[in-house]
Amino acid sequence: MSRIYNFSAGPSMLPMEVLEQAAAEMTDYNGSGMSVMEMSHRSPVYDAIIKQTEADFRELMNIPDNYKVLFLQGGASTQFAAVPLNLMKNGKADYVVSGQFSGKAFKEAKKYGDAKCIATSEDKTFSYIPEITPDMVREDADYVHVCYNNTIFGTKFPEVPNVGDKVLVADMSSCITSEPVDVTKFGVIYAGAQKNMAPAGLTVVIIREDLMGNAREDIPTMLDYKTMADNDSMYNTPPCYAIYVAGLVYKWALKNGGLTAMKERNEKKAALLYDFLDSSKLFKPTAEKKYRSMMNVCFVTGDADLDKKFCKEAAAAGFENLKGHRSVGGMRASIYNAMPTEGVEALVEFMKKFEAENA
Amino acid sequence: MSRIYNFSAGPSMLPMEVLEQAAAEMTDYNGSGMSVMEMSHRSPVYDAIIKQTEADFRELMNIPDNYKVLFLQGGASTQFAAVPLNLMKNGKADYVVSGQFSGKAFKEAKKYGDAKCIATSEDKTFSYIPEITPDMVREDADYVHVCYNNTIFGTKFPEVPNVGDKVLVADMSSCITSEPVDVTKFGVIYAGAQKNMAPAGLTVVIIREDLMGNAREDIPTMLDYKTMADNDSMYNTPPCYAIYVAGLVYKWALKNGGLTAMKERNEKKAALLYDFLDSSKLFKPTAEKKYRSMMNVCFVTGDADLDKKFCKEAAAAGFENLKGHRSVGGMRASIYNAMPTEGVEALVEFMKKFEAENA
Repeated sequence: MSRIYNFSAGPSMLPMEVLEQAAAEMTDYNGSGMSVMEMSHRSPVYDAIIKQTEADFRELMNIPDNYKVLFLQGGASTQFAAVPLNLMKNGKADYVVSGQFSGKAFKEAKKYGDAKCIATSEDKTFSYIPEITPDMVREDADYVHVCYNNTIFGTKFPEVPNVGDKVLVADMSSCITSEPVDVTKFGVIYAGAQKNMAPAGLTVVIIREDLMGNAREDIPTMLDYKTMADNDSMYNTPPCYAIYVAGLVYKWALKNGGLTAMKERNEKKAALLYDFLDSSKLFKPTAEKKYRSMMNVCFVTGDADLDKKFCKEAAAAGFENLKGHRSVGGMRASIYNAMPTEGVEALVEFMKKFEAENA
Repeated sequence: MSRIYNFSAGPSMLPMEVLEQAAAEMTDYNGSGMSVMEMSHRSPVYDAIIKQTEADFRELMNIPDNYKVLFLQGGASTQFAAVPLNLMKNGKADYVVSGQFSGKAFKEAKKYGDAKCIATSEDKTFSYIPEITPDMVREDADYVHVCYNNTIFGTKFPEVPNVGDKVLVADMSSCITSEPVDVTKFGVIYAGAQKNMAPAGLTVVIIREDLMGNAREDIPTMLDYKTMADNDSMYNTPPCYAIYVAGLVYKWALKNGGLTAMKERNEKKAALLYDFLDSSKLFKPTAEKKYRSMMNVCFVTGDADLDKKFCKEAAAAGFENLKGHRSVGGMRASIYNAMPTEGVEALVEFMKKFEAENA
């Protein structure tokens, strides 16, 4: 078997020992005589799995008791509708548009009320994060929505934005569990699991309890946070297997030092790439320095043909999925928790070689 | 390793060779150097998987070209909202309530328009399927909704109901791929995958193309059939791994003779159980003979304590999850495609022994 370094923006690499454990337990989980895929979600054996997964996630993220954790389906894209349907009590919400997904979230919210874009970085192709101050937020806005890490453009909020006493809602799909986060500063955090946590098909929502119970009457039941919370994410059959894999990943992260250690390792990996990019004569990073993502490193040569050549040769050398998002082109190296430091070191070496050959 | 016979109503048994292949390919799918869980959903290697899965499903179900197949998330419970949001052009729909899930579907539809229950079997604890004739359907109803197999009560429509020229929508979660079905008689067929097809977290929708494009303006984008169809189920990241496992299951079903062979085997398995129940002095089947499900066989002893004793001793003997749904009690043996005939034979032997000991 020959594993490659997979720089995909998501779905993306999972820790090798997680995959090996999943394979080993595939036909018989822990002496149950069943695969986790085959278990009734209401059985004691599965109940222990989902409860332990939640406990480990709470420990990893240091989630206070007054927050619920929900294991849902539908991806962050479903949350773009669920957030306004659940939280728009006054029918008003303010959005920061710092990339493609926050733009989609904003557009979706407009279906359900008066959604306003209070700041955007569209003027410079989303290469930075606009500054947010409390006076920008409308007095009667039900919440302020941000996308904390922009996967496509490789930018990240340098700190938690100050929205005063307003409820802050964050899409953290591409940065969750990459570093410690003060959950108490947020009303809702949501994330598709397929980047840092699990296979695609699981969406995690962390929500302050007092924010539930105000959904619109015509909300699809499956999108109602309170229904899902009251039923411990088991109003219907949850995505059981993806939750189980998430549990293995959380255990792996805890065993490897938790989010403080994840951050340290991720900073080191990102620095390896950004330092090289800053010194390179061929490659240029595209995000403004202050707002650089630790997870998604975007860069270009400035020559579309050369970009193409680079991606092709990189793939042949075992560095997969370095092509930038189809909407922006160039290159993107996504270096989530499961990407080993050696993978980034090897990529930098390959880039140096490519630069020498193509100078 | 000791595999047990798992009679769970869902999630439920998967073919052993499917689980073994999934385990073998877990860290390196087909020489890609990646797990299927790690693949970008937009990569050529994953594209081949989802396309082959759809092709095999179309072959298995004999789906005509004017029907789209969608691989979605959220379970049948999400479809309870998606169906009216997409199809209620006139704001009217007629529902047949033949069990708990069709009741939930009906209740959800009332949020979005004038939903009417045109027939129910609630008077006899859903132990039969009410007869449907075209004159029962309202002239301007946008569709008629049925649940084709009632998992909890162990009943099934004996034939496709006659709704005249109206659009028939069927929840087939617990009987899809158990026998051949004439897709052309339906406007929409939907099914959670976790009974006959895949792990939980995948929902399959088969929809006649001309029924798309009439969704309400405020429909959550992720629930809009047309958006999903226009993007080949990849508007956002689909539940990639569950789709891959579904593909393995479809291949297994095709290799084993397709749905004609599945039906033959399922009929034989169901007959083994029902014949015994009909002759038993201790156990009684609960569904009326004409409407008996081939997938979910419900029965009681008439004594709640004895039911409990039976389930306990059965579990100890390697027959798991025979307890009836928490809302009805008694016993239920779910015998989906992946349950081998030997499992049912062994269960009948065990029941005979239990009967002899407890007469």
